[in-house]
Amino acid sequence: MADAFSFHLLATDGAARRGEIVTPHGRVATPAFMAVGTQATVKGLAPDAVRAAGADIVLANTYHLMLRPGAERIAALGGLHRFMNWPRAILTDSGGFQVMSLSGLRKVEDDCVTFRSHLDGTMVELSPERAVEIQDLLGSDIAMQLDECVRLPAAHAELRRAMLLSLAWAARSKRAFEQAPPGRALFGIVQGGDDPALRLESARTLVDIGFHGYAIGGLAVGEPQEVMLRTIGEVAPVLPADRPRYLMGVGTPEDLIEAVARGIDMFDCVLPTRNGRHGLAFTRFGPINLKNARHADDPRPLDEASSCPVARDYSRAYLHHLVKANEMLGAILLTTVNLAYYQELMGGTRGAIAAKEFDAFRHSIKEGWERGDLGSL
Amino acid sequence: MADAFSFHLLATDGAARRGEIVTPHGRVATPAFMAVGTQATVKGLAPDAVRAAGADIVLANTYHLMLRPGAERIAALGGLHRFMNWPRAILTDSGGFQVMSLSGLRKVEDDCVTFRSHLDGTMVELSPERAVEIQDLLGSDIAMQLDECVRLPAAHAELRRAMLLSLAWAARSKRAFEQAPPGRALFGIVQGGDDPALRLESARTLVDIGFHGYAIGGLAVGEPQEVMLRTIGEVAPVLPADRPRYLMGVGTPEDLIEAVARGIDMFDCVLPTRNGRHGLAFTRFGPINLKNARHADDPRPLDEASSCPVARDYSRAYLHHLVKANEMLGAILLTTVNLAYYQELMGGTRGAIAAKEFDAFRHSIKEGWERGDLGSL
Repeated sequence: MADAFSFHLLATDGAARRGEIVTPHGRVATPAFMAVGTQATVKGLAPDAVRAAGADIVLANTYHLMLRPGAERIAALGGLHRFMNWPRAILTDSGGFQVMSLSGLRKVEDDCVTFRSHLDGTMVELSPERAVEIQDLLGSDIAMQLDECVRLPAAHAELRRAMLLSLAWAARSKRAFEQAPPGRALFGIVQGGDDPALRLESARTLVDIGFHGYAIGGLAVGEPQEVMLRTIGEVAPVLPADRPRYLMGVGTPEDLIEAVARGIDMFDCVLPTRNGRHGLAFTRFGPINLKNARHADDPRPLDEASSCPVARDYSRAYLHHLVKANEMLGAILLTTVNLAYYQELMGGTRGAIAAKEFDAFRHSIKEGWERGDLGSL
Repeated sequence: MADAFSFHLLATDGAARRGEIVTPHGRVATPAFMAVGTQATVKGLAPDAVRAAGADIVLANTYHLMLRPGAERIAALGGLHRFMNWPRAILTDSGGFQVMSLSGLRKVEDDCVTFRSHLDGTMVELSPERAVEIQDLLGSDIAMQLDECVRLPAAHAELRRAMLLSLAWAARSKRAFEQAPPGRALFGIVQGGDDPALRLESARTLVDIGFHGYAIGGLAVGEPQEVMLRTIGEVAPVLPADRPRYLMGVGTPEDLIEAVARGIDMFDCVLPTRNGRHGLAFTRFGPINLKNARHADDPRPLDEASSCPVARDYSRAYLHHLVKANEMLGAILLTTVNLAYYQELMGGTRGAIAAKEFDAFRHSIKEGWERGDLGSL
């Protein structure tokens, strides 16, 4: 019998938290970064490579999978874990964010959102209940409620409408989830844009409804970093200490460190994978753009002290060549390096929090970025 | 001190040969299939994955590497093995074939071929001497003479002119190669199209000049399979038994088996990698086109008895999904399966020749292909 979902807070250092999530598909050390596996694959990496880069958990997108290959089909094939050959934990989003960002035509009503599929143009309905059902069919370990995410800046009335709708959908999601197989988790999502009062109302009401974990949505959608961090700092203290906190769709390495400092436990973001496909490496020395001609004759590895073999075994000259020649291997190797760096960074926060040295860690990490690429010479 | 190039004929069964090539970068069991690493990468696979698929040796293309990133640059970075992080044997072609097939504008003269780079339009000269020099700079274990390859069908006079030019270039290549660092090998290339007399004249003259190994070029360039196999059957007996024989740019699994039956030791071809990127898997049951909708709900692996984990661990439904969704992982997994299948096929020929059971092996392999995909149900 697989373990049921639970969260254990193991250590704190200031607001920063070191914990562990138990899921039916294994444990997740927090703070945790979730690689994005939109279409049931982390782009460019086989599951063993994702694991080798240090991942305990990946995220998959309900919107994409409901449209192709279809949730019922994945269920008939034994669920998403078996489908994508990833035996560890999976979190699925609810599909709401992609409906807003990818589908050209959509109509949000109290009952559900109706949208046009970006694949074949058919009209599709997604309700809070259907979003839960789809995630049941996929069999993810952590499901997310359907919410409405508003781009910033936005008018107060619009932020309030979407926040209240998301709360109503949260309550319906919870009721629907009571039919789900046991052991899995459902997270609520705090909305409210950049308005502190709306954020607090959203967070407090969600806590009253009661979820296995709480996400902060609607950030990294156009606002300055300081607004994002201020909002996290206001919302996190309202959330129960014994439940994991997930900052959705964030972010840069600096965003992650600063959010951990404010009490966030989980992250997902396309940056390490998408930027890897576009020639950018994240390293201890900050980002390195391998497209740049200055790397063409550089025999040095990206980081000879990295835990990632790719960062040690390939020269910058070779990576530059692969990127310039548009070879798949360039995307594969840089995706690997970037995921490993994100995981190494999360591992660093975990060690530092346990040792009560988080501030020193945060400081030294930022020093490395500021010294920059050539500082390693 | 690395071993110098040598070839050891270990067993024969009819005309089929089991052997071993020793190179400065390790041993190559023959019959051998060389994965194509055109731009210093086997498309989609890191070197450890190429090795895991069973490869002792890869091929890289002089034409591409001389244009980008440049042979002198690779030499300054420590040579091609270090550049691409592949510590095993490498064969480089001479660039001649790509000059003919990729470069829009070219002029073949006695001295050299002048062509327009497909990358930046500059005019580039390639002589037999420069082709040897470039391969020295790359540091490949096996270098090929510059030759002129003619598409079939072609007029006798044209075949004869190109064959004689290739012979003249063979002699010049050998003289140039005498300056190369010791231990490496230079192969001559038999030309002459589909004309038996020209082929024999080419082969006999090359043997008189003397090379470490002999390639048959100018096949799989438009002629029927029976013409290719007849030509191999005529040329191979003229080549010395104690030197490896390399059939360039061939081919399908059936081509390989039939060429081994006629005394060929080495092959290279883009089919397993290119077809893998286009959704086609080579298996014991013949080719399987994963684009086909009939795979959408099929939970079966490609081949549960394969030595390749990818062929065992992923469902056809998932591979179909990846291919339809245009995900990199589809290309990666099918490239892996195909290279492993080609290597498994070569391993099968080696075992069968050693056991003097090559005809039975050839028969049973073809039976598997004829039973087809659904025969595995």
